[in-house]
Amino acid sequence: MLKDDTLVSNAAVSPVERLNALVAADMAATDRLIHERMGSAVVLIPDLSRHLIDSGGKRLRPLLTLASALLGGYRGEGHTRLAAAVEFIHTATLLHDDVVDESSLRRGKVSANIVWGNKPSVLVGDFLFSRAFQLMVETESLRVLDILSNASAVIAEGEVLQLKSANNLAVSEEDYLKVISAKTAALFAAAAESGAVIAGQSAERIQAMHDFGYNLGIAFQLVDDALDYSGRQALMGKSVGDDFREAKVTLPVILAHARSDEAARKFWKRAIETGPQCEADLDRAITLVEETGAIGETMARARAYAELARRSLAPLPEGEIHSVLADIADFCVERAY
Amino acid sequence: MLKDDTLVSNAAVSPVERLNALVAADMAATDRLIHERMGSAVVLIPDLSRHLIDSGGKRLRPLLTLASALLGGYRGEGHTRLAAAVEFIHTATLLHDDVVDESSLRRGKVSANIVWGNKPSVLVGDFLFSRAFQLMVETESLRVLDILSNASAVIAEGEVLQLKSANNLAVSEEDYLKVISAKTAALFAAAAESGAVIAGQSAERIQAMHDFGYNLGIAFQLVDDALDYSGRQALMGKSVGDDFREAKVTLPVILAHARSDEAARKFWKRAIETGPQCEADLDRAITLVEETGAIGETMARARAYAELARRSLAPLPEGEIHSVLADIADFCVERAY
Repeated sequence: MLKDDTLVSNAAVSPVERLNALVAADMAATDRLIHERMGSAVVLIPDLSRHLIDSGGKRLRPLLTLASALLGGYRGEGHTRLAAAVEFIHTATLLHDDVVDESSLRRGKVSANIVWGNKPSVLVGDFLFSRAFQLMVETESLRVLDILSNASAVIAEGEVLQLKSANNLAVSEEDYLKVISAKTAALFAAAAESGAVIAGQSAERIQAMHDFGYNLGIAFQLVDDALDYSGRQALMGKSVGDDFREAKVTLPVILAHARSDEAARKFWKRAIETGPQCEADLDRAITLVEETGAIGETMARARAYAELARRSLAPLPEGEIHSVLADIADFCVERAY
Repeated sequence: MLKDDTLVSNAAVSPVERLNALVAADMAATDRLIHERMGSAVVLIPDLSRHLIDSGGKRLRPLLTLASALLGGYRGEGHTRLAAAVEFIHTATLLHDDVVDESSLRRGKVSANIVWGNKPSVLVGDFLFSRAFQLMVETESLRVLDILSNASAVIAEGEVLQLKSANNLAVSEEDYLKVISAKTAALFAAAAESGAVIAGQSAERIQAMHDFGYNLGIAFQLVDDALDYSGRQALMGKSVGDDFREAKVTLPVILAHARSDEAARKFWKRAIETGPQCEADLDRAITLVEETGAIGETMARARAYAELARRSLAPLPEGEIHSVLADIADFCVERAY
């Protein structure tokens, strides 16, 4: 399951909330645009879209776009269109992802494919994807269209590649990195980069925002994949084990499997490759990824990418947005604890 | 089931073949581009794409784009990118359509959703759709991007609207026209219009090409929907009854149902709305649409739209392409007999 925006704050005000406050007016405008453009005379389209779009996602990707544009001193209205487009691409991906994964929950709610069926989920995803391109065309920036159409192709490629990761313990760390780089980091990178492009920033700063988004995206996905095996998350009543139940091979499993004794290897083989899974399997999996240090190492790598993200910001203008973006990189890893 | 390009020639050389000969070099370039751009290191993507793209579709939509650009005296290479983009949008739609309709055949071959499953069909459709936008961006024409992103949104909207037409005899002629206008005519119109745009034609000629594509698309879909109930098609060993089996309410059914006596109404109610369908039902449906004149009237309307298409061409430069396009409008209806 492709996770999104499950940022849990443990401080009074998280950096995500601080960034939201800094771009509040533009985010409100983006939100109005999102609701306006998901409209259609075919009422099933706004009904189904609203179910997902108003379900408490943190709008992290459009937030990156807005922050990136404002950091570059942008003064127009194109960045809200761009931010809405980015959120539509993300939403379309989630709709198709839930059909592909046969998921039944999304953001703690029954998912659209369960409420309305697979057919409308596929087609409304296509609709939102088209709407994203309409919004991008309105920015009149061919460069932005180039960045986001490339990202969309990479995301789809990553999702196809990911199909091979299910039920397959032979997936390498390299394959895994390719998948998360495509399915998650590509859109974070494009969201951040396109904000800098529309603000007319220098090539160096555009690259910096791209790198920030990319590294943040990798860190974000690593943490999500670690949290899916977090006993602590389970204690907090948050969903765990989605990837395990879908038999998806993520980094915690790759690392734990590589460090397994005979008995544990047999367990992973049955649980991930041959089936069937039984009730107690998730607990055993959580114990194994903890004991082998697989979770610790996944988190360590996330921390390294977060550090890369923070460093990517160097060429960008100092100020409040810059410093909050840096804090978001750290927060994205800290949220696990 | 969304039909495509099932043009059956009954003359020695059909106008579609004549048009293909006129644009042969550009179509060969388009085809090379299509095969190049459906490539990916994730081999499932070209494998699945090739299955559909090389299965003998007539490339009618890209043909319209190329013809329209050449009719406008275009001399660049952008029209082949545009034509490839149009074919990718069409292919992506077919892939998603077959998942939605749970189809098992496409162009006489086992469909991709059956060979590879629904998941890759959804995701490869997304990939091809993204590739379409990448190709359009390469034309550097925001206007073309505008036309085709609008068409894509309309197509998706039409597909969602069509979901309501299944198992529902209350569908009106107006609803039906909305559906075929969105799911078929919109892409024909955009394909033709964008060729004229890239050729830098006048507003009047651009509108003319749009109208030609739109009216041709409507005629084309009306004929397809009539052929799905054609006893003659059945005799020729061609597929009939797809719409009927999927309980889709198309114009032949709407008209036949409206002209039904009590017994026939009961039949339509069971066959389309409540089920179950049995073996002999398709024969009875074919008899009913013939006897009530529903097929004849559907074809008469197709003929009227073909005539509108022919007339739309008036503002366009005279010459071979012009005259073949006019013949295609007629041929599109004649192919039924």
